[in-house]
Amino acid sequence: MGNCCDAMRNCCTTMGNIYFGATKNTNVRFSLPAVCAVWQIAMIVLFGVFIRYDEESDAHWHEFRIEHNITSDIENDFYFRYPSFQDVHVMIFVGFGFLMTFLKRYSFSGVGFSFLLAAFGIQWALLMQGWFHSLDPATGKIYIGVESLINADFCVAGSLIAYGALLGKVSPVQLLVLTLFGVTLFAVEEFIILTLLHCRDAGGSMVIHAFGGYYGLAISWVLYRPNLNQSKRLNGSAYHSDVFAMIGTLFLWMFWPSFNSAITDHGDGQHRAAINTYLALASSVLTAVAISSLSQKKGKLDMVHIQNATLAGGVAMGTAAEFMITPYGSLIVGFCCGLISTFGYIIVTPFLEKYLKLQDTCGVHNLHAVPGMLGGFIGAIVAASATEEVYSVEGLISTFDFEGDFADRTVGTQGGFQAAGTCVAIAFGVVGGTAVGLVLKLPIWGDPADDNCYDDEVYWEVPEEDESIPPILEYNNHMIHHKHQDISESNFSVEQS
Amino acid sequence: MGNCCDAMRNCCTTMGNIYFGATKNTNVRFSLPAVCAVWQIAMIVLFGVFIRYDEESDAHWHEFRIEHNITSDIENDFYFRYPSFQDVHVMIFVGFGFLMTFLKRYSFSGVGFSFLLAAFGIQWALLMQGWFHSLDPATGKIYIGVESLINADFCVAGSLIAYGALLGKVSPVQLLVLTLFGVTLFAVEEFIILTLLHCRDAGGSMVIHAFGGYYGLAISWVLYRPNLNQSKRLNGSAYHSDVFAMIGTLFLWMFWPSFNSAITDHGDGQHRAAINTYLALASSVLTAVAISSLSQKKGKLDMVHIQNATLAGGVAMGTAAEFMITPYGSLIVGFCCGLISTFGYIIVTPFLEKYLKLQDTCGVHNLHAVPGMLGGFIGAIVAASATEEVYSVEGLISTFDFEGDFADRTVGTQGGFQAAGTCVAIAFGVVGGTAVGLVLKLPIWGDPADDNCYDDEVYWEVPEEDESIPPILEYNNHMIHHKHQDISESNFSVEQS
Amino acid sequence: MGNCCDAMRNCCTTMGNIYFGATKNTNVRFSLPAVCAVWQIAMIVLFGVFIRYDEESDAHWHEFRIEHNITSDIENDFYFRYPSFQDVHVMIFVGFGFLMTFLKRYSFSGVGFSFLLAAFGIQWALLMQGWFHSLDPATGKIYIGVESLINADFCVAGSLIAYGALLGKVSPVQLLVLTLFGVTLFAVEEFIILTLLHCRDAGGSMVIHAFGGYYGLAISWVLYRPNLNQSKRLNGSAYHSDVFAMIGTLFLWMFWPSFNSAITDHGDGQHRAAINTYLALASSVLTAVAISSLSQKKGKLDMVHIQNATLAGGVAMGTAAEFMITPYGSLIVGFCCGLISTFGYIIVTPFLEKYLKLQDTCGVHNLHAVPGMLGGFIGAIVAASATEEVYSVEGLISTFDFEGDFADRTVGTQGGFQAAGTCVAIAFGVVGGTAVGLVLKLPIWGDPADDNCYDDEVYWEVPEEDESIPPILEYNNHMIHHKHQDISESNFSVEQS
Repeated sequence: MGNCCDAMRNCCTTMGNIYFGATKNTNVRFSLPAVCAVWQIAMIVLFGVFIRYDEESDAHWHEFRIEHNITSDIENDFYFRYPSFQDVHVMIFVGFGFLMTFLKRYSFSGVGFSFLLAAFGIQWALLMQGWFHSLDPATGKIYIGVESLINADFCVAGSLIAYGALLGKVSPVQLLVLTLFGVTLFAVEEFIILTLLHCRDAGGSMVIHAFGGYYGLAISWVLYRPNLNQSKRLNGSAYHSDVFAMIGTLFLWMFWPSFNSAITDHGDGQHRAAINTYLALASSVLTAVAISSLSQKKGKLDMVHIQNATLAGGVAMGTAAEFMITPYGSLIVGFCCGLISTFGYIIVTPFLEKYLKLQDTCGVHNLHAVPGMLGGFIGAIVAASATEEVYSVEGLISTFDFEGDFADRTVGTQGGFQAAGTCVAIAFGVVGGTAVGLVLKLPIWGDPADDNCYDDEVYWEVPEEDESIPPILEYNNHMIHHKHQDISESNFSVEQS
Repeated sequence: MGNCCDAMRNCCTTMGNIYFGATKNTNVRFSLPAVCAVWQIAMIVLFGVFIRYDEESDAHWHEFRIEHNITSDIENDFYFRYPSFQDVHVMIFVGFGFLMTFLKRYSFSGVGFSFLLAAFGIQWALLMQGWFHSLDPATGKIYIGVESLINADFCVAGSLIAYGALLGKVSPVQLLVLTLFGVTLFAVEEFIILTLLHCRDAGGSMVIHAFGGYYGLAISWVLYRPNLNQSKRLNGSAYHSDVFAMIGTLFLWMFWPSFNSAITDHGDGQHRAAINTYLALASSVLTAVAISSLSQKKGKLDMVHIQNATLAGGVAMGTAAEFMITPYGSLIVGFCCGLISTFGYIIVTPFLEKYLKLQDTCGVHNLHAVPGMLGGFIGAIVAASATEEVYSVEGLISTFDFEGDFADRTVGTQGGFQAAGTCVAIAFGVVGGTAVGLVLKLPIWGDPADDNCYDDEVYWEVPEEDESIPPILEYNNHMIHHKHQDISESNFSVEQS
Repeated sequence: MGNCCDAMRNCCTTMGNIYFGATKNTNVRFSLPAVCAVWQIAMIVLFGVFIRYDEESDAHWHEFRIEHNITSDIENDFYFRYPSFQDVHVMIFVGFGFLMTFLKRYSFSGVGFSFLLAAFGIQWALLMQGWFHSLDPATGKIYIGVESLINADFCVAGSLIAYGALLGKVSPVQLLVLTLFGVTLFAVEEFIILTLLHCRDAGGSMVIHAFGGYYGLAISWVLYRPNLNQSKRLNGSAYHSDVFAMIGTLFLWMFWPSFNSAITDHGDGQHRAAINTYLALASSVLTAVAISSLSQKKGKLDMVHIQNATLAGGVAMGTAAEFMITPYGSLIVGFCCGLISTFGYIIVTPFLEKYLKLQDTCGVHNLHAVPGMLGGFIGAIVAASATEEVYSVEGLISTFDFEGDFADRTVGTQGGFQAAGTCVAIAFGVVGGTAVGLVLKLPIWGDPADDNCYDDEVYWEVPEEDESIPPILEYNNHMIHHKHQDISESNFSVEQS
């Protein structure tokens, strides 16, 4: 299949060169507004047909409360989940957005395009996830509440991760296409994994990180640019852009306990997921620092590792956080994944670029794909080793949702299905990403030329003058110019004389 | 009235020139400390006389719980509203503060003066709103709880919006005066709109955004500076200051669902307001991007639009968010307001500056004044079209608070009052702003000269040297100087020879 | 004792110079990874032996609920404290981290090392605080829940404060040692103050701020560098680094109400603590601005004061926030501490450096040590003046926890113990800090040389090129060089001719 795809990607490149020449047209003045407007109108129509408030956000809630004997407004799911929702929301927009500002001249696109991508994606996610997970067959409507909003944010995270692999090399139109297909694929794989296979994946190690990571990597592989080193001067950070990226890192790191606990069971489920994630993340920081220091001359730390590998523990706890993995188990997971992720940045990413022709700007392979996959398998192992003694009978049923059709499932079987779910997520990422990559290779999307990547100038009105030149230096430069003129004149006069 | 004001503003200018000459004195060493100290001491005295804890924050809560048969501490209003309060708090200080850091050399003032303004304003707001809304006639005291804190933050938002129109052109003393009157006017118009007219305005489209926007515009109109283009070099952004501003934008955008749901009814009210705002905001992003791209050569995006117009949906949902506007209704509101707001930045702001002599630094006309006004009328329409079928009998009463004196009001009447309330807010903004503008025109407040606007140097100790000059360049410049000296000398010797 | 310590610090310095020469070895390639790895493995082992989920985060929660007749999952402590926990978490990592980015070339270390320090510290804190406060004698286990996570964050705050005094002058290995001992000392003093003396200190004026402040100052005093002015060029801020620091300031300021209310009593306790802190902070801002303006020529504000002294009200309310200090009492506390703190920055810090040989980079003396100490005594006074009328009988018992062995304690006695607790905290800080300082003076930790302080280059791979040079200027410089060559050549030819 690889060869076939390889042939196809070459074919597309050739077509592009034939029809459009080697120069790229990055003008998106027609395509970007058109896509935004058409899709937003489509969203309005589809929302009009399908989306309604659920019983907890509808004005009939008072009647519902009486019918279901709910004693207080505080039992509305809003109060169980809204604080976590807002934390997740911050992770999606500030966390992912600012993590991608690290390039010296691509901060506008890093934070701006992830904003655009996510704002579109959450609407489409409400529809896609609604159709697959909560369409009421009686009314044909999707009923949404705060949990739907969290799930929409989660769904968009997959596409944002994919953006990380492509950062600097794609146009905003390509990103919207990537999101349209990414959210669609996400909803399908999520349906297969969570509903058909009946896996548990509260923080999305499988459905979000493994899928999103491999989806992005597959697209990046198809969109391989042999001459990308023409933009090498811009593919790096600057002092301040690294500090901006730390805003993203820290908000992701701090709120990851909310991410992994946002949609777990009320009560002990949310409580435990937050504790486990908190511990795994703390542990990741220490191993990331250790390996980063070990890998560099004089033990100097590398900002790339601190910005990314410190988060690996959160990714890897996405599935197991709600289980009784134990506090020290969480620390072990964080320890190993911080280590593996940092090694990935040092060794694997350069290897992939050199030998697999895979350009991965943010290193999503090391932060999302691999830790996500590991997280899936960790979840499988922890599930398979669950006992009634540790969980209690009631706890085992509620944690793994052994109810209805799945009342007779054993924990061993559950472990097997969890592992299978991880494979499904990876398969969806790789196959889906390859297909979407071929679509994105069509020479109609306004992507930048090889010598024009990682540059905000292509898609943004960038302020001309830089404020960072202090008046004194400006004055000096000014004087230098003046002096030059004088000198040139005097030289000229010398020559004349 | 316009002519009268025009005459008065000319008169003030003349007075200023006569008594103080054309040069401006920006020394605030006496006035700023004096205002801060005197007002803070006044706050302490007034708080001592008037402000007490309410029953939910008082140590007598245990007795109150038993008296009112409240089963659990979790029913304390603190747990319903505190997460939203903290989100609103972030919007006021980081959201507004960082949104105003976009100017290349005015970031200290943008974030620092809004910090000062808001810290003073929330204290004065607790008093003013207390006197108008919750003064206990029996004891003569104002009892405060978490909802009072949210309302104080809301009240200050009006003055922060006004600051947006004046950014770079006023002194910190003027801002404190603006806040003193702004909070006062706010409390009065809020009393008229919410209590006398019995409007609903949970997220403040009318009372916060329409009022604050027109208040700032009217002040800016009175303070018109014909020679402001002398500071043109500083009236623009720099690369990093635009990224800083995105911190403000994103925290406003993310937490706006909390803003619009913070003081709505417990249960479905808060839940629905959050969902509606989330959707409207997502929709705004896509239309803002579409119009921004359409308006520029080669489809390049403009950071000003992304930083501001993406928020228009939140402003416009301030009144209707708690109503049954439906999810697709929210998307439509966001769609239209993102579009209108971006057009405003492209067309209306330059028009206002050229023909109405109205200098609006942050474009609050497009982000607050117009979307706020539209939000008020949208609220009126949605209220007027409410039905018992959609809301349920109980829901209709609780949503529109049809109780007590207003038990017989129909939804049609309510819609009329909502529209009237919007007009009241605008009138208060325009008239109040004109009056306050005339006060601020007095030549005693230490505002900067026309060629000194948008410059932190006027009110801040700005670090002299800039770190952004890397050692190598510094070295080069150093060498250039040396070489120059050599050259000059050699030239001189040439001339001598 | 001072003389003795003085002799010892000289002795250590001499030893260092004898064995290692005057040049410093800042290579941490062995020590940093070793410390991180060994300590993290130790954490895993100790967690395996000691740490378990508490009954609210364990899967047996369902059984516990039934046993204890808890009607709803919402009564799980998670829902009372999780929003506050996340706010505190943001304060620790973004608040403290970004507050320390203000130096022009030390932002990586400011935010990066505080990240490392805190990630290690919270794990060690869970163990230390667990052993002292919640070790179950029956099982020999420590049971953790969300309140444990908050307390761990609190505990780490002490060491972060100490880092503030040492910013720019220590290696990451020294910081980890500082944290190891800092957390240990914290747990012991906290045990003495809260358990043995039975003080109340919800927001930690005593146990966090007074202890942490004096701990850092004592270490800094021992590590005095007579030739630190060799790094003077880097000991200052740059324009953008000051704006980054405002991110830290604002998140600390905004979330401080959550900090002081995070572990207070459910219901009115949390509610009141949040209100009091909100008011004290607002008041601090105005006096900080007043004094800052008064102290500078032309009334210009100093960013150092705005970044720090505005927070003094939060520090000083750490003990009294949960008491019935009254709203105007809170304003008075904020007023005085904002004033004292700003004076400290203007007068005391230079004095300490000149006459006490105490180098305090962030001025923790003025923000934490003194306001923390004052906060302790304010708490003592407010406790001593508590009455049954104000608190109610029940409220007095629950606020001061007059139960069990302490059922007969009077408020007067309580006040005395509160004051004693403050002294214990200071003593632990001074003595512990001096001892730890001597350990850190050993010449094995890789700290920077005197002319190498405040420089990220020592411990970080810093991006070489700076993005802030716009292409045009680069081009100009380039041309200048070229022209110079031309000129030199032409001059040369002149000389030749």
